[in-house]
Amino acid sequence: MSNTQEFDLKRKEILDCAETLFTSKGYEDTTVNAILKEVGIAKGTFYYYFQSKEEVMDAVIMRFIDEDLQIAKTIMDNQTLSAMDKLLQCIFSKPKTDNKKVMIEQLYEANNALMKQRTLQRTIEVICPIYAQMIEEGNANGEFTSKQPLEDIQFLIAGIQTLFDLSHIKGSTIEIQIESVVNAIFQMLVVNEQKNSKTKVTEIMIKHIKA
Amino acid sequence: MSNTQEFDLKRKEILDCAETLFTSKGYEDTTVNAILKEVGIAKGTFYYYFQSKEEVMDAVIMRFIDEDLQIAKTIMDNQTLSAMDKLLQCIFSKPKTDNKKVMIEQLYEANNALMKQRTLQRTIEVICPIYAQMIEEGNANGEFTSKQPLEDIQFLIAGIQTLFDLSHIKGSTIEIQIESVVNAIFQMLVVNEQKNSKTKVTEIMIKHIKA
Repeated sequence: MSNTQEFDLKRKEILDCAETLFTSKGYEDTTVNAILKEVGIAKGTFYYYFQSKEEVMDAVIMRFIDEDLQIAKTIMDNQTLSAMDKLLQCIFSKPKTDNKKVMIEQLYEANNALMKQRTLQRTIEVICPIYAQMIEEGNANGEFTSKQPLEDIQFLIAGIQTLFDLSHIKGSTIEIQIESVVNAIFQMLVVNEQKNSKTKVTEIMIKHIKA
Repeated sequence: MSNTQEFDLKRKEILDCAETLFTSKGYEDTTVNAILKEVGIAKGTFYYYFQSKEEVMDAVIMRFIDEDLQIAKTIMDNQTLSAMDKLLQCIFSKPKTDNKKVMIEQLYEANNALMKQRTLQRTIEVICPIYAQMIEEGNANGEFTSKQPLEDIQFLIAGIQTLFDLSHIKGSTIEIQIESVVNAIFQMLVVNEQKNSKTKVTEIMIKHIKA
């Protein structure tokens, strides 16, 4: 095995253990020492791979974000979907793996607020550019008239994520948030209501969220 | 002094001390014991006033939110301002007291992510209804055509706050965020560009932010 392969394998092992600890105990309550113990390595070894616990968290988040990016690219290439369908499928897709489901639930815990904020940041940086391509497709086929696709979707994702987060905390019904979000999408992207009706988009969104 | 006055005074004392500790050490790193020590009270006394550290945090946040609410009400009553001016003055107002300045700076620290999230939640619940009144005024005088003022402003505040938070973390230039935010305001509120130009609104916003 080459040095690079060994490095990658050990790094993956640390990330897997850290992910398990973050999702079971929460990020704030997981110490670097707990990670060392779980992986069975010395402090020096850990710091050869990562500079801090925060860097491990970032790497764990980036693995999930990469997964989302691959899903978005596959949806982007699906010629049978409208631009609006593509966006809704991506934005409201449910986590595919059990680990990711647990992780997302954990993000709503009080002691994971930093991890949640960082996840949103990475989504806006890494995933929004592909959403912007979907919007450009919608601009071209007359579904939308978005003047600045990337900025529009970044603002939308920031608002949608934050509103859904708050609804999770407050325990208010998801339906009210959905109405707000549908309105925001239609206004921000200047949706052509003859091609996509609010009623239909609301139905699709609810179907995705409750799936 | 009546029992109520005594209760209120002691409660205020605990909040003042907690606020100082939160803004100097951070919320996560402030223990209930540290608050007890600072105020000079026993654990039982503390729990007579508050159920948890989180409840103290909520009360500290609510004092700042109440301040913002009073400022918003005063601006609302100023007959010389347009609806857009009122909104910009409120949303981009600078903190008036030193304590609040320090608190807002502290909110961007990693160990205060929960406090920041809660501040946004309270803003959306408590302050947005008065912003919605400003938008209704703008609808009436032809500045805006917002179909659902409360939902529109809640979405806008969620998006604006989150984007500015992320810009703070990433260290990207504030100017790019401002362009995004101006576009979002114009699209969400369907701003009449003959009454409020994007250039003018951008200038006013920059003036407020840099003031």
